[in-house]
Amino acid sequence: MNTCGNCTSCSSADKVLENFIANSEVETSHHRVKSQSPKCGFGLQGVCCRLCSNGPCRITPKAPRGVCGANADTIVARNFLRAVAAGSGCYLHIVENTALNLKKTGENKGIIKGVDTLNHLAEIFGINEEDTHKKAVLVSDAVLRDLYKPRYEKMELVKKIAYAPRVKVWEKLDILPGGAKSEVFDAIVKTSTNLSSDPVDMLLNCLNLGISTGLYGLTLTNLLNDVMLGEPVIRQAQVGFKVVDTDYINIMITGHQHSIIAHLQDRLLDEDITAKAKAVGAKGFRLVGCTCVGQDLQLRGEHYKEVFSGHAGNNFTSEALISTGGIDIILSEFNCTLPGIEPIADEFEVKMICLDDVAKKANADYIKYAYEDRELITDNVIEEAIKSYSSRRKNVKISIPMEHGFDDVVTGVSENSLREFLGGTWKPLVDLIASGKIKGVAGVVGCSNLTAKGHDVFTVELTKELIKRDIIVLSAGCSSGGLENVGLMSPSAASLAGDNLKEVCESLGIPPVLNFGPCLAIGRLEIVASQLAEYLGIDIPQLPLVLSAPQWLEEQALADGAFGLALGLPLHLAIPPFITGSEVVTKVLTEDLKDLTGGQLILEEDVMKAADRLEEIILNRRNGLGLL
Amino acid sequence: MNTCGNCTSCSSADKVLENFIANSEVETSHHRVKSQSPKCGFGLQGVCCRLCSNGPCRITPKAPRGVCGANADTIVARNFLRAVAAGSGCYLHIVENTALNLKKTGENKGIIKGVDTLNHLAEIFGINEEDTHKKAVLVSDAVLRDLYKPRYEKMELVKKIAYAPRVKVWEKLDILPGGAKSEVFDAIVKTSTNLSSDPVDMLLNCLNLGISTGLYGLTLTNLLNDVMLGEPVIRQAQVGFKVVDTDYINIMITGHQHSIIAHLQDRLLDEDITAKAKAVGAKGFRLVGCTCVGQDLQLRGEHYKEVFSGHAGNNFTSEALISTGGIDIILSEFNCTLPGIEPIADEFEVKMICLDDVAKKANADYIKYAYEDRELITDNVIEEAIKSYSSRRKNVKISIPMEHGFDDVVTGVSENSLREFLGGTWKPLVDLIASGKIKGVAGVVGCSNLTAKGHDVFTVELTKELIKRDIIVLSAGCSSGGLENVGLMSPSAASLAGDNLKEVCESLGIPPVLNFGPCLAIGRLEIVASQLAEYLGIDIPQLPLVLSAPQWLEEQALADGAFGLALGLPLHLAIPPFITGSEVVTKVLTEDLKDLTGGQLILEEDVMKAADRLEEIILNRRNGLGLL
Repeated sequence: MNTCGNCTSCSSADKVLENFIANSEVETSHHRVKSQSPKCGFGLQGVCCRLCSNGPCRITPKAPRGVCGANADTIVARNFLRAVAAGSGCYLHIVENTALNLKKTGENKGIIKGVDTLNHLAEIFGINEEDTHKKAVLVSDAVLRDLYKPRYEKMELVKKIAYAPRVKVWEKLDILPGGAKSEVFDAIVKTSTNLSSDPVDMLLNCLNLGISTGLYGLTLTNLLNDVMLGEPVIRQAQVGFKVVDTDYINIMITGHQHSIIAHLQDRLLDEDITAKAKAVGAKGFRLVGCTCVGQDLQLRGEHYKEVFSGHAGNNFTSEALISTGGIDIILSEFNCTLPGIEPIADEFEVKMICLDDVAKKANADYIKYAYEDRELITDNVIEEAIKSYSSRRKNVKISIPMEHGFDDVVTGVSENSLREFLGGTWKPLVDLIASGKIKGVAGVVGCSNLTAKGHDVFTVELTKELIKRDIIVLSAGCSSGGLENVGLMSPSAASLAGDNLKEVCESLGIPPVLNFGPCLAIGRLEIVASQLAEYLGIDIPQLPLVLSAPQWLEEQALADGAFGLALGLPLHLAIPPFITGSEVVTKVLTEDLKDLTGGQLILEEDVMKAADRLEEIILNRRNGLGLL
Repeated sequence: MNTCGNCTSCSSADKVLENFIANSEVETSHHRVKSQSPKCGFGLQGVCCRLCSNGPCRITPKAPRGVCGANADTIVARNFLRAVAAGSGCYLHIVENTALNLKKTGENKGIIKGVDTLNHLAEIFGINEEDTHKKAVLVSDAVLRDLYKPRYEKMELVKKIAYAPRVKVWEKLDILPGGAKSEVFDAIVKTSTNLSSDPVDMLLNCLNLGISTGLYGLTLTNLLNDVMLGEPVIRQAQVGFKVVDTDYINIMITGHQHSIIAHLQDRLLDEDITAKAKAVGAKGFRLVGCTCVGQDLQLRGEHYKEVFSGHAGNNFTSEALISTGGIDIILSEFNCTLPGIEPIADEFEVKMICLDDVAKKANADYIKYAYEDRELITDNVIEEAIKSYSSRRKNVKISIPMEHGFDDVVTGVSENSLREFLGGTWKPLVDLIASGKIKGVAGVVGCSNLTAKGHDVFTVELTKELIKRDIIVLSAGCSSGGLENVGLMSPSAASLAGDNLKEVCESLGIPPVLNFGPCLAIGRLEIVASQLAEYLGIDIPQLPLVLSAPQWLEEQALADGAFGLALGLPLHLAIPPFITGSEVVTKVLTEDLKDLTGGQLILEEDVMKAADRLEEIILNRRNGLGLL
């Protein structure tokens, strides 16, 4: 077993994975943590600027300004806003493609799997249309229209989908977003050379971007996908490397844009396609989940029981997964597709295909996705999968640690399926909170990284600590991929919870950590928060609800985080987002924000202290609601 | 006199300025060059990545990949594409606001100063409309419509405004841009964490962004401004600190969006406003030019003889200008507004107002610009200017080096005014080139920086070397601001040219360095190139025409450069744009591109060697055209 810093690979909360990696000869990200240390202190603090040819400049006590005169506050805020804007752009790219695919599905009278969600959206958007397909087009158009508005026109759906008391706060702060794509665009402009130098304006701008990220990139992507791909249904599923069945041609999927593979996943079960697989000696095709698109398939697993073999793991599990030899082809359409998979795919002769050029991997084939071309694309992918399977299986050693994973992970949890599970109302949950059986709710969300104590280590340790304190944990993102692979999303994990929460879990037959699926489903958690607040007639910051993205990794996570802060939630991070070099930025985010939105950033690298801080906030909020 | 590295302030080609700064107690960018050295080698080579919480990562021979697996090629290309995208975004922000202001001008039946340009645009856009104001609306709408197209729809005006043989090349390379704003947006997405890892795809993407930057951000901004603000007319003008007349209330302007101050500049001459100035002891109001918006005013100086006192200098002259004490208020609407002016403005009690939040300075008031509010905004600015003048003049020492600058700079040069000057045809220029009286044409363009041998030092030395070799120099950008302040744009500079070019200049009464104005006018140079190529029936890369942006500074310059490379021009830079850490990126840009677009990046930090390379290319191209 390895621990970070002293030996070859870094530690993982997932010990089977850690051993597999440690005993493999394949280089992975887990090995490179060591070779990339020590890290640059200027970069860690956010005080390095390389926006112009007079630089790079670095702020030190002796050089408190860059050549242009920018100080640490300006440089840190600029770097941070640019990262949030890029992350927001990623989510908006996803929702744009998703809306476009739903629009084309409607225009082409394709299958609408989630009619209830479609009706719900039409209702809140104020669309009166009987025909389901036309309704899908109108709903999609409303989303696309907002995304493409100029910045000086506010988006129309914000007030229709956001919780009303929040909209008031945002209006007062003048952070209601204009056209989401233009907001990202202008934030990038704002952070370019010799443009904005105002840290406070740039931080408020982050909140604006957070709102469009959350409402469109997260919430609406989920709901539009529910319409096209089917609504989540609670069920148990298998996870980990054990989901890989070498009797099949295994297509590993990575990305975030589930609707792009919608046609493929339906087609793979057709008889003529299965026959093609059989002709080369396989039983058929299987999709193996990896990263968020895998979580999304898992979430909707009820509708894809046969074609989806299960979710193998999160981003930093992907390299090891390929090195088992069990994957025949990799299909990716977005991040988090690590560049580190490229040499491993080459070594194991695994074909790589990308369906979106923004996520083009250096050694992958690029097939441009367009709804109109979906049949051709599917044919093409299937043909390449067969070719890859046929040529590689005779050359490559397959060694899958079948002891990796669990068989009874509770999946398919969404705002609706959870409320239905509770009897169609939030009352049982509110009662459990009021009675103290559940002390509060923590969203432990976001990515996985390798540097907050190791792969998923902080996420798992913090989650264990929270459930021990009777705080129920909801998860979405690569964090889910980590938590489910160590058993915390299986019913038996109830035994790790505090006595009160354990009793609740055992009586309901649920684990103490609920699996909402991909990072996109952070939007679902926030629907839950809004509905709970609405049920109680209070605003979101009054809820005994906290967020932690302990192992945030990507720019997208920072945009998610900005949404959480705009919603007025406390947000914990174990690794600071490159801001500590600025007193102003750090103070605004960790302190001043409390008086603006009610949110606050909590930077805490110690698990116990983080749990203490989050519990304390929950207790204070219980107190504010008059609960013991 | 100071030289970089050994003493307080860096050297400048402008010795009066250098002395003024060296003898002042005010800290400027010129002083901070020293405190910001040595620079980070990883940043200089572009091999530092801080896109995720596993980083920052830095590539070294011992650590050839970041934690995620990204190698130097991926990291360099990603950083470079992001910079080009941000720079492109800046120019597109400018053209969007410009088109919007023209649209509103049309809708409100405002003054159209450049009817010829409007008719020209309507003709090439295929717009049939008699009414001038309606025509202005339709022309603006055509631009705005293209900017807002999604990425999967190609822009319509590209084929109407670009040189046809180039469009063919771009089509073949699949780099014709879709909606320009969406292209920038997706390029930012592409460069986010764990998305693209393909360096070649990312470099081709830069060319796509270059095309929309050049055709819309540069070319169309100029032409739309010609319609609103008046077409350039060749005339002589005063430049340097001597333009500041302390009898007036002096409004220093910085930025790039001239149309935003259109209402103000017309209003400042009205009797009631002059009366207000007189009431506090001033003779009236004057606009003092600084950075590109000053160059744009200078370019159109024929229409603003009274209100515009002249162009004082480029970006790195602005801090010194404020420290003369002669400026009463600073009005900015974009970059290049250095953060370094903030403490100096505070010290000299100079009010700062920003009219665009993307360029909000930390200590400035922000007044949101909208065409509808122009009268209120103008009133507000005038009121603040009077207040600032009245309060500061009694407290602040004014000391302006009136020996700084020149009285006879030839300005107002544009594609049209130059052709008119030549008799309405390019024939005389082509004949002079064919006869060898002019060996070739070099665009010495772009920014000013402090690190390519000092402030404007490389620009001025290279220009002197080129004209000595009978190569006529056209300039646009802060480079112009530097060249005019050392006398190279005055007719007497003919004496510095080679015998042939000297003879041409003296017979025509022109300097050997022609002043096209702001960096936006790089688009005008490229119209000249297209028209010359068309006149000769050849493609642009066959012309004896080279580009150098020796002292590029900003991300915008890199987007300009991408346009030059897409046009097939050789582009010299004295400082590498943070790419040398990648063999692939460096090779594609400096070598492979020749076979793709005909363009090539030339990195050369030595003035004589750079002049040799550029002259050699010109001679080769003359040879290719059968010229001696």
